[in-house]
Amino acid sequence: MPVQAIRWQDGQLFIIDQTLLPTEHIEIRLNTLGEVWEAIKILRIRGAPAIGICAAFGVVVGVKEKAPSDVESAFEVAQDAADYLATSRPTAVNLFKATGRMKVTADANQGASSTDAFIQALEAEAIAVFDEDQAACKAMGDYGASLIQDGDGVLTHCNTGALVTALNGTALAAMYRAHELGKQFKVYADETRPLLQGARLTAWELMQAGIDVTLICDNAAAQVMREGRIQLAIVGADRIAANGDTANKIGTYGVAVLAKAHDIPFYIAAPMSTFDHELESGDGIPIEQRDPEEVTHGFGRQTAPDNCPVYNPAFDVTPASLIAGIVTEKGILRPPYTESIAAAR
Amino acid sequence: MPVQAIRWQDGQLFIIDQTLLPTEHIEIRLNTLGEVWEAIKILRIRGAPAIGICAAFGVVVGVKEKAPSDVESAFEVAQDAADYLATSRPTAVNLFKATGRMKVTADANQGASSTDAFIQALEAEAIAVFDEDQAACKAMGDYGASLIQDGDGVLTHCNTGALVTALNGTALAAMYRAHELGKQFKVYADETRPLLQGARLTAWELMQAGIDVTLICDNAAAQVMREGRIQLAIVGADRIAANGDTANKIGTYGVAVLAKAHDIPFYIAAPMSTFDHELESGDGIPIEQRDPEEVTHGFGRQTAPDNCPVYNPAFDVTPASLIAGIVTEKGILRPPYTESIAAAR
Repeated sequence: MPVQAIRWQDGQLFIIDQTLLPTEHIEIRLNTLGEVWEAIKILRIRGAPAIGICAAFGVVVGVKEKAPSDVESAFEVAQDAADYLATSRPTAVNLFKATGRMKVTADANQGASSTDAFIQALEAEAIAVFDEDQAACKAMGDYGASLIQDGDGVLTHCNTGALVTALNGTALAAMYRAHELGKQFKVYADETRPLLQGARLTAWELMQAGIDVTLICDNAAAQVMREGRIQLAIVGADRIAANGDTANKIGTYGVAVLAKAHDIPFYIAAPMSTFDHELESGDGIPIEQRDPEEVTHGFGRQTAPDNCPVYNPAFDVTPASLIAGIVTEKGILRPPYTESIAAAR
Repeated sequence: MPVQAIRWQDGQLFIIDQTLLPTEHIEIRLNTLGEVWEAIKILRIRGAPAIGICAAFGVVVGVKEKAPSDVESAFEVAQDAADYLATSRPTAVNLFKATGRMKVTADANQGASSTDAFIQALEAEAIAVFDEDQAACKAMGDYGASLIQDGDGVLTHCNTGALVTALNGTALAAMYRAHELGKQFKVYADETRPLLQGARLTAWELMQAGIDVTLICDNAAAQVMREGRIQLAIVGADRIAANGDTANKIGTYGVAVLAKAHDIPFYIAAPMSTFDHELESGDGIPIEQRDPEEVTHGFGRQTAPDNCPVYNPAFDVTPASLIAGIVTEKGILRPPYTESIAAAR
């Protein structure tokens, strides 16, 4: 079994603090709404599905923290908690879908017989978000593994594994499943600057699972492709528009362009919760700008001049035209995406 | 005036220790052949022209260190010193050209009247290597600046400025000169993993000179291009084959592919000393593989799992077909390169 990023036990929320990986593997308990918000904000927990799951449980944590005396005030607290958690990060749509579901559940349970019953309804909904993601991982793993052949080199970017989902990931689910099936393949993991999720998390997860992984700097991906080492690229997503345009970790768009130039198929893997059917195209996806210090002071040491201007977008948008297929729990969607995405909805 | 990376004064060799930049700006004296070799090996001094210049002076340092009693033994020491320095790094051809020149000079001065006269001849040759590079920088600056228009965004990769030459660089010479001419433009500097020469050195140099520079992660280059911020890309070179194929810092090839995909002209800037006329194509250029720890333990902190497999090529080769022009001290060479390079020889 891969590691478990999020655990809900006896009504309490536990996560692996991913900022400490790979040198320290520590599970922490998130006791308050503020702690949940901060954990998402500073990426103790990250990756679109995990953010959604954590926020769903976060609403329960937030309501319990306030110990409201009646259902009416519990309802208010739940609404506020959901709205607050939705401000933690802007790009992953799973966050807004999960907090939206919690608000709908709160709304539907205004007539609950007690605050306990109200909280139980919220908890059940958060567990449903978690369980649905587990099922999605399993299905994505099956579909994604079909893309990997013996002898393949598979390039991935950022971290899209057990650490970002309720089970074994989105893009990495394909690799976990292919490995389980006995396929022989080699993963090349982009280190993924500035926060090095590829180096710290993907390499760590895959090594723990015994999958053959080699770490490369992001800027070596082109050369690795040119050397014929890569037969497919597969990455995750933070938000997918109705036309298939996909926001994902900064650098993804570059990988897609490079893959195209080397005739390598480029795939996205993401659960249906990552689709934003209301957005016609990727142009409408808000791109989070993050702290310049992530770039200038990334490794415990200053690596750029004082006051150096920095442009640090956390995501980019890959146009649908560069995407060979989108692996979902409902199958592998193929172009034209406007049609295939609408049909899978 | 930009900073001076290499200084030869009163018969002694001084360099800025670039491993300490940007937080410490310290000039060190290289007292022995071993210190010169180590400085090149671990990148205290780096960049193709600077490696050549430093190795030329290094031969003088090596001969003085041994204090040979007669010209015959001085000749032996000089040959050995040149051969030893040539083992410090494999890719930049300037290193081999400079050590080769020193060997030819040693050979031509076997009949010197004294060891002092012999050493003076070596010193004069090393100074000639330095002076020729200064003149080349000046000319490259003039030609390169003609490519930059008001309002342009200019992408560069690695560091190709004052720190790698006897004056103000190869690709950066164009920017220094354009700035001197009052042109308004914006530089985007790739940080250039794993050793962050873009963040530590390029951003530092350009900020010191008052040139508008913004630091980006390597993997953000594609997005920055897509946003229309880049009108040209210009980088240096470590070795250029007779057909124009160019070895340069890992990531350069990726920038060239991305530039092509965005219809952005991609230029190389390098002195004629960087051309290897004996090599028909880039296929013959040896690519240095460097220590995995550069990737896994880059800046004082472990950022990948213990024993993580790493692929860390220090260079890649950009095919001539992706290069819009090569800025040299003899003008801007254009395709077809086999002809234009042969003509400029």
